[in-house]
Amino acid sequence: MTSRPSTTPGPGRRQLLLAGTTGVGVLGVGAAAVGLDRSLRDGGAPAASAAPALHGSDTVPFHGEHQAGIETPAPASATLLALDLHEDVDRDGIVRMLRLLTDDAARLTQGRGALADTEPELAAEPASLTVTVGFGPQLMERAERTPPAWLAPLPAYDIDDLEDDLSGGDLLLQIAAEDPLTVSHAARMLLKDARSFAAVRWVQRGFRRSPGTQAPGTTMRNLFGQFDGSANPELGSDHFAHVVWIDEGPFAGGTSMVVRRIRMDLDGWDRADRTAREQATGTRMSDGAPLSGGTESSLADFEQVSDNGFAVIPEFSHLRRARGVDDGEHQEIFRRPYNYDVPPPARSTAVSESGQLFISFQADLAGQFLPIQQRLAELDLLNEWTTPIGSAVFAIPPGCAEGEYLGQSVLE
Amino acid sequence: MTSRPSTTPGPGRRQLLLAGTTGVGVLGVGAAAVGLDRSLRDGGAPAASAAPALHGSDTVPFHGEHQAGIETPAPASATLLALDLHEDVDRDGIVRMLRLLTDDAARLTQGRGALADTEPELAAEPASLTVTVGFGPQLMERAERTPPAWLAPLPAYDIDDLEDDLSGGDLLLQIAAEDPLTVSHAARMLLKDARSFAAVRWVQRGFRRSPGTQAPGTTMRNLFGQFDGSANPELGSDHFAHVVWIDEGPFAGGTSMVVRRIRMDLDGWDRADRTAREQATGTRMSDGAPLSGGTESSLADFEQVSDNGFAVIPEFSHLRRARGVDDGEHQEIFRRPYNYDVPPPARSTAVSESGQLFISFQADLAGQFLPIQQRLAELDLLNEWTTPIGSAVFAIPPGCAEGEYLGQSVLE
Repeated sequence: MTSRPSTTPGPGRRQLLLAGTTGVGVLGVGAAAVGLDRSLRDGGAPAASAAPALHGSDTVPFHGEHQAGIETPAPASATLLALDLHEDVDRDGIVRMLRLLTDDAARLTQGRGALADTEPELAAEPASLTVTVGFGPQLMERAERTPPAWLAPLPAYDIDDLEDDLSGGDLLLQIAAEDPLTVSHAARMLLKDARSFAAVRWVQRGFRRSPGTQAPGTTMRNLFGQFDGSANPELGSDHFAHVVWIDEGPFAGGTSMVVRRIRMDLDGWDRADRTAREQATGTRMSDGAPLSGGTESSLADFEQVSDNGFAVIPEFSHLRRARGVDDGEHQEIFRRPYNYDVPPPARSTAVSESGQLFISFQADLAGQFLPIQQRLAELDLLNEWTTPIGSAVFAIPPGCAEGEYLGQSVLE
Repeated sequence: MTSRPSTTPGPGRRQLLLAGTTGVGVLGVGAAAVGLDRSLRDGGAPAASAAPALHGSDTVPFHGEHQAGIETPAPASATLLALDLHEDVDRDGIVRMLRLLTDDAARLTQGRGALADTEPELAAEPASLTVTVGFGPQLMERAERTPPAWLAPLPAYDIDDLEDDLSGGDLLLQIAAEDPLTVSHAARMLLKDARSFAAVRWVQRGFRRSPGTQAPGTTMRNLFGQFDGSANPELGSDHFAHVVWIDEGPFAGGTSMVVRRIRMDLDGWDRADRTAREQATGTRMSDGAPLSGGTESSLADFEQVSDNGFAVIPEFSHLRRARGVDDGEHQEIFRRPYNYDVPPPARSTAVSESGQLFISFQADLAGQFLPIQQRLAELDLLNEWTTPIGSAVFAIPPGCAEGEYLGQSVLE
């Protein structure tokens, strides 16, 4: 887990923050990056002294108040693994498994090989590796602990077309780093730890922009071309803590995690013109700003009407339905999504099988996430092109100190 | 395609070369990168003036003597698409398809949206995107041209366990860039061009280290932890041209391409200790040097014997069998491999389904590739842990000038 990063105000720099103060000076490098980008766009070659930021040795602290991999900039590559406990695994087995996982996660994230690592060289570039562990309801029951009331599958929504093999799970591992080989190796090492106790239920790999493709702090566009992740709570802010971290009970310092695999109908989207797209999202395709104006980080003005009397941000747009201002209450969640793009079924006429690996964290699943999801499921123009095909909810225990295992405060 | 890069001798700098002289000064940046890496390893923070290389706007020239994507450093992300022509597509259809593909490949690689691009913003960061087109035998026949004699499936080898859905194909598109979103978008745009003419036969995505994870010029380790790509012909050298480019006939300026999907048994590999691994590969795990000594770039000394009289590089090691010095002739190919790591089948006990997307280019398939493959198929200790599950051969036409289409010199 990570210590709280210092706050750096200003749009476009939010994601420059690297949680923790012990890492290399990524903030400074990021700021300099913008300058280099400009010189390249102006046609100038970088000066001979321009040095790219090698980030292979960057680390994110493992131990701490919260688990890592949440209040840290989402790195380029992630693998999410959901495991189902073997039938004979009881409370003791769960604790043994978590000790093994915690120990190896601590090592791997700091650039050391796992305890039984036969390719320790592949651990030498952690590239900001984080490992985040989550519990499904059955793990809590097997561990003889009462699951939180909210730890259950989401309600069935009419928009859903869920596949069992992409949903649920007793244990979640979110393994993420700037480098995909690092992620593959770490995932394999952790699965070796877990395999005596649990079987793979599903594996989902996601990607974001490679480091250096865009200036740090640039919001990712998804495969629709939409900005994705605008107006997220700012990493390191009190507001983030309020939105994300549970503040009492056994999961204090933890959070709830929703994972939804959302298939995107890119062919259908292609048939929508730019105006239709902007009306569906409520934002401008060019810069992600709300249709009411300003920049990507501007607050939406839902009251604004056009000359002919229509709402500038349509009633049924994703932005308005997600924000839910009509309820008088403004729910927020923290989104940390990835893209996916996998081979279409063999010999199919499909040209892509792709979409978003939606990931959100929120302190109060019932009070924050569910109302937003309910509104979007009821009515959201974007639903015409999106279909949730996988869904899972996990309870994320708080971080742990050295010598402890992840989940110890919950299970002991 | 790319103009010939200038030669930069010296080990470890080969991959710094960016073909073409019109791109940004990647060579200089790369050289500086090594310095930064050193300072980070020494524990120092980068100086405030250190600017990471933003590479999103980097481009590789599209037009030229050879196609791009071969004599250029392999970028982090690649998608290989094999298509089968629809039954009614004739010579005219093939030419129309190639014109569309060439036009959009030229645009996308230079950072412009495809002609019918509905998400042109996703094309704005080409991140060294290259698109390489190859022909299977049936495409040549449909285009009423005699395929080269070598353009056929490889001979059946005992080591193979080929899946039809991972083998063959009439048209090959190799789409590669430093950024996976760029690759996804380009692949989709090109498939939209091709879909009226051909259906997807297979899609294979591969990855290498993210830009910045390691210093440019570092040879990639694969999922076995092995150095992969050592002793490759040096980009930009006369030797490279000799090994790779066909020098006469309709494919002059082109080459042959072999794509093999090689499943790696990581569980079995785990049970081999370091000595067994080094005996199997003939190289040191620590630095990729031949067991006869030196560095990764040192020539292997196959004559060297240990104190007890055994060959230091074992007779049946991959290195010795691949080099084939016993034949008195030394064949060479240019390898440009990627890793793959995909979800294992649902509910399986496997912890990984991964391996290598082996890609090689050589002027003379029969004279260079086949003898090596034959030797390795007959005997190679590494075969114990590897299984080819997909295989395809394509003829890569030369590059084209503006106004021409890829393959024009072959098909006209």
